[in-house]
Amino acid sequence: MEVQYHDYLQLDKILNTQFPESDKHQQPAHDEMLFIIIHQAYELWFKQLHHEVNSVLGIMQKPTLNDNSPELQTVVHRLSRCVTILRVLVHQIDIMETMTPMDFLDFRDKLRPASGFQSWQFKELEAKLGLKFEQRHGKEYYTSQLRPHHVDVIKKAEDENSLLQRLNEWLERMPFFDEGDLWKDFQKTTTGDTSHPFWAEYRARFKNSLSEGEQNNLAAFDEIFLVETVAGQKNLSAKAAKAALFILLYRGYPILQLPFQLLNSLLEIDEQLSGWRYRHMNMVHRMIGTRIGTGGSSGKDYLKAAADKHYIFREIAQLNSFLIERRKLPDLPAAVERRLGFVAGTAR
Amino acid sequence: MEVQYHDYLQLDKILNTQFPESDKHQQPAHDEMLFIIIHQAYELWFKQLHHEVNSVLGIMQKPTLNDNSPELQTVVHRLSRCVTILRVLVHQIDIMETMTPMDFLDFRDKLRPASGFQSWQFKELEAKLGLKFEQRHGKEYYTSQLRPHHVDVIKKAEDENSLLQRLNEWLERMPFFDEGDLWKDFQKTTTGDTSHPFWAEYRARFKNSLSEGEQNNLAAFDEIFLVETVAGQKNLSAKAAKAALFILLYRGYPILQLPFQLLNSLLEIDEQLSGWRYRHMNMVHRMIGTRIGTGGSSGKDYLKAAADKHYIFREIAQLNSFLIERRKLPDLPAAVERRLGFVAGTAR
Amino acid sequence: MEVQYHDYLQLDKILNTQFPESDKHQQPAHDEMLFIIIHQAYELWFKQLHHEVNSVLGIMQKPTLNDNSPELQTVVHRLSRCVTILRVLVHQIDIMETMTPMDFLDFRDKLRPASGFQSWQFKELEAKLGLKFEQRHGKEYYTSQLRPHHVDVIKKAEDENSLLQRLNEWLERMPFFDEGDLWKDFQKTTTGDTSHPFWAEYRARFKNSLSEGEQNNLAAFDEIFLVETVAGQKNLSAKAAKAALFILLYRGYPILQLPFQLLNSLLEIDEQLSGWRYRHMNMVHRMIGTRIGTGGSSGKDYLKAAADKHYIFREIAQLNSFLIERRKLPDLPAAVERRLGFVAGTAR
Amino acid sequence: MEVQYHDYLQLDKILNTQFPESDKHQQPAHDEMLFIIIHQAYELWFKQLHHEVNSVLGIMQKPTLNDNSPELQTVVHRLSRCVTILRVLVHQIDIMETMTPMDFLDFRDKLRPASGFQSWQFKELEAKLGLKFEQRHGKEYYTSQLRPHHVDVIKKAEDENSLLQRLNEWLERMPFFDEGDLWKDFQKTTTGDTSHPFWAEYRARFKNSLSEGEQNNLAAFDEIFLVETVAGQKNLSAKAAKAALFILLYRGYPILQLPFQLLNSLLEIDEQLSGWRYRHMNMVHRMIGTRIGTGGSSGKDYLKAAADKHYIFREIAQLNSFLIERRKLPDLPAAVERRLGFVAGTAR
Repeated sequence: MEVQYHDYLQLDKILNTQFPESDKHQQPAHDEMLFIIIHQAYELWFKQLHHEVNSVLGIMQKPTLNDNSPELQTVVHRLSRCVTILRVLVHQIDIMETMTPMDFLDFRDKLRPASGFQSWQFKELEAKLGLKFEQRHGKEYYTSQLRPHHVDVIKKAEDENSLLQRLNEWLERMPFFDEGDLWKDFQKTTTGDTSHPFWAEYRARFKNSLSEGEQNNLAAFDEIFLVETVAGQKNLSAKAAKAALFILLYRGYPILQLPFQLLNSLLEIDEQLSGWRYRHMNMVHRMIGTRIGTGGSSGKDYLKAAADKHYIFREIAQLNSFLIERRKLPDLPAAVERRLGFVAGTAR
Repeated sequence: MEVQYHDYLQLDKILNTQFPESDKHQQPAHDEMLFIIIHQAYELWFKQLHHEVNSVLGIMQKPTLNDNSPELQTVVHRLSRCVTILRVLVHQIDIMETMTPMDFLDFRDKLRPASGFQSWQFKELEAKLGLKFEQRHGKEYYTSQLRPHHVDVIKKAEDENSLLQRLNEWLERMPFFDEGDLWKDFQKTTTGDTSHPFWAEYRARFKNSLSEGEQNNLAAFDEIFLVETVAGQKNLSAKAAKAALFILLYRGYPILQLPFQLLNSLLEIDEQLSGWRYRHMNMVHRMIGTRIGTGGSSGKDYLKAAADKHYIFREIAQLNSFLIERRKLPDLPAAVERRLGFVAGTAR
Repeated sequence: MEVQYHDYLQLDKILNTQFPESDKHQQPAHDEMLFIIIHQAYELWFKQLHHEVNSVLGIMQKPTLNDNSPELQTVVHRLSRCVTILRVLVHQIDIMETMTPMDFLDFRDKLRPASGFQSWQFKELEAKLGLKFEQRHGKEYYTSQLRPHHVDVIKKAEDENSLLQRLNEWLERMPFFDEGDLWKDFQKTTTGDTSHPFWAEYRARFKNSLSEGEQNNLAAFDEIFLVETVAGQKNLSAKAAKAALFILLYRGYPILQLPFQLLNSLLEIDEQLSGWRYRHMNMVHRMIGTRIGTGGSSGKDYLKAAADKHYIFREIAQLNSFLIERRKLPDLPAAVERRLGFVAGTAR
Repeated sequence: MEVQYHDYLQLDKILNTQFPESDKHQQPAHDEMLFIIIHQAYELWFKQLHHEVNSVLGIMQKPTLNDNSPELQTVVHRLSRCVTILRVLVHQIDIMETMTPMDFLDFRDKLRPASGFQSWQFKELEAKLGLKFEQRHGKEYYTSQLRPHHVDVIKKAEDENSLLQRLNEWLERMPFFDEGDLWKDFQKTTTGDTSHPFWAEYRARFKNSLSEGEQNNLAAFDEIFLVETVAGQKNLSAKAAKAALFILLYRGYPILQLPFQLLNSLLEIDEQLSGWRYRHMNMVHRMIGTRIGTGGSSGKDYLKAAADKHYIFREIAQLNSFLIERRKLPDLPAAVERRLGFVAGTAR
């Protein structure tokens, strides 16, 4: 049977779901249509983001990922699509900003207490990516303002394993360091006190790279890479952090190329989410000023705090503090190098 | 009664209108969700564009517009919002481009013959702005592929007066030239053969501005500004074209400032629509190549032709060919100048 | 004499001013070229922003502006161009972000202590717009790191009258309220204690618009609109604030349309500057993490604080807290209305 | 010695290379500064694009590329940076569009015959990427308007091997098909007449995928993939085209992941270049209309033709016409699969 564009997209429904409150009150406000449609467009895209993140989680929560399958490529591709979507969502704020404060006032009071902060899809998305309840600014927002079954949806996303947790486990499974014979000809210049000669050596070189005023970075290094996870304290275990740092340092080896892209795309997602909240905050500020005691004022504070605090992959970003110059990196043993490459990796 | 975000936006409907054909055929294709959602987002924004253009038409089709009312400001503001929306729609193509040709192939055949060319809302929008049936490339598209009642919707928009027609009438109503006493002290340096001393003078100066190789532009000048409209030949009458040119030349006078912004926003709408079709064409090209005999190939040709031909406000853009340097403009008589200004236009 | 593109643009110079430090140290780092060129591109655009702002200041610092001249149109047009430029500058950060932390490390140490915070053109721009020395976060930055004559350039911009000051004076010159006979038939519903019946009335209506929990906004109202400027405390005098609020409320009247656009473009400049600092901060964060004791860490903090605090036109934004709904606005007397309109403002 | 931002960037030079012609003629035109600076910014970025493309060529013109080295990753990363730069350059046209036709007229005549079409850096860039002299629209442009030594620069780039040629050679070196024993257990369903069982099989399946009206695509298939290159006719040899198609089809295998990204980034470069020309054309059109006999008119036609014709990697884009659905792809023999994977490609 033939598919028809109009039916396929269910336009009869999509285009008949805009009912301005101002019409119901017989005080039509032209701009309320914009307000409805832009939020509906956001929610459509949030659904799409869920679709992508769900599929990524589906792959990442397998007990093992085969590097020779296209799975990791798919993960990177879809996360990178999320970044592209988020860029458009940030840009879309330009449209909202064409609404002037006076035009918003025409219908603003009629919407109370509805507000964008009631977007359960967005909160669920944050949770799926890895934002914990206890890290949230304004925890009360979703317990008080959302419907019970939407609160449950978000809580479920928090309980289930998030992308951040899946990432941690995947990083922990990184081989190479567990296989002692790979490293037997590794020339380390110092005798380190860490579990593995490579990390002993790297720690020594990192120490050397620090100027006098920077020596206390070594304590941070040890805490992140050597101290085992204390429950609830770190999202990235020492083991996973080491794997991630290794990827950043040796990203040029074939088997590390996609993992490097993966880490980068997570940082970009954080950056776009943060940019979205920040522009949103500026927009709210311009729209309703700083009137005391209104939702607007607290909304602005919420967005500001969230923009500052809700970096989900902060511990990945932090790893960039512990890099050393490429020319000072320890050379890897030939056996390791070979394991990082292609079977067919002959020159052509 | 309290308004709740989820209900207000009718999210139960909005988020439950995505039914991939590939699921129905038990051959799930991950990217079909993106295909559905991006088109739904486009259609939501098309609805918003209609909302804005309708309100603009509502104002413009009044028999008269009072310059002292905020009406023209509203028109300019809403058309400028349309430009902002269109910019986002152009950007949104980035998201579609994250779908690779192989991923599209996974479900492409299941959609036939549905295609974006069946968006009746978009065609209706073009018609409302002023695109005539006879100017359309691929006229057969909407007679053959759209439902009868959607074809009627578009035809109705063509029959009713379009923004281009309303603009023409509004321009024709421009005063100043009909009031002879305003011009009695106008020093014209030549004796022109046109209906009004200002245009006689301007034509002479324009002629002077042409280098030897450019003299044939004078014929174009006469055809546009002096020849009365031949039915169906020109969308802008000679009278309206003169008014528009006057606005471009003397945009600095208070009463011409918003009209100048109005003309500009129409050109920007055309430019964004054209850019949208062009990027769309490139995207289709990358997605399905140039396979002979498929909808894709003809789709690409359609978009290219439309990008080239469907400039709705082309006759406004063309006026820029007839400008002369600001320092060579005829000075306006004091009486005209006063009529172009504010009552309270004293220095402050 | 014929002009040649290559000479006209002085490309011999422009294209021969890139000398990577890493080359001088015989440790070529590919990405240093990008680092140089992007900063040069930024500085070129800063020069252009100065060109625009200088011309705007040139107009605004006239003792009077004639509303019937194109001056205000020019001001609005050029400030709006600044916004367009700033948008591109924000976007340009995307390019910088293609440089990975490891690639930056290849030459980072060789540049010390040079940093983007030494852009005196940018600091001068902030000063010209109205940022005061005492409002600056990190005041020590330019006293310690810039050359004395560049410090002088910035100090001069602070001493001379800034755009914010010019704006204040221009707003203070707003007529209408000083002309008592314009208001003689103004129906005020309350007896106010303010200097003018319109503001007495508006204050009463604003009070009415406040819900119980919002009553303390009245104190803020009085402080902003009724208390005379205490030196150094407010950038906007009570008189200027009232004029600006009047523009926001009655922007539909012809003579207020460009002033409304002017106020808006200033807010957009602030928003873009803030967005630029914020994205910049995120970029620095990703690039060099949070290593303790390095310029990077403090650079990030500086950018964050500046993004939060350096809103130059904050007092304009704040006015949006004191709007009331359009349908509740006091009607203006016919005599005032006439003074706000065009001479030729008859219907057409 | 300490590096200082101002010296490092050579700002004394950069900021003192703007000398408006209108100043020299004592007819200062405010917007000429914008005209100069935007073109200088473009040329700076063109230099950066050359820097990236040069480095990519440096890698690609090695007789062999080692897949186990980071070389291909570097190529992909830098081409992708080129795309990011080009996106900003397209966006930058927004700034140029803030110049109105009347403002341009203020200085336009003084620049003749200088025009953006004299950017030899841009033409050299096109040549380096692979645009041939004979494919150029408006060949006369650079022979007549450029300086002899700049013409030489471009011709040299045409003579030397371009990125397109390097790509062709690199694709031709793809192994797998030359190693007969890899394919000995390949189950082909048809007896093909092509040189290799895989391509015989693929051709048969492609034929099956064609509907009745599409059968003539088979001739195109044969011409592209089976006919040896006729000198000057094809930029991609049949051998290279097959390798590229194989990459598109089996991009999921580890060793094909970066090559897939490489092909994609080339298509994106073409798309951005095309978009740049197209927006440029629209801008020229709006700026100077269609006046007959001026550089503007021909400039517009040039840009349109170039946007249409100068797709450098067109033959790569065209390959997407020959894909078949993923589920219908021939399974690769285990021996081939192994050669496409990692040494360490065990599940984790």
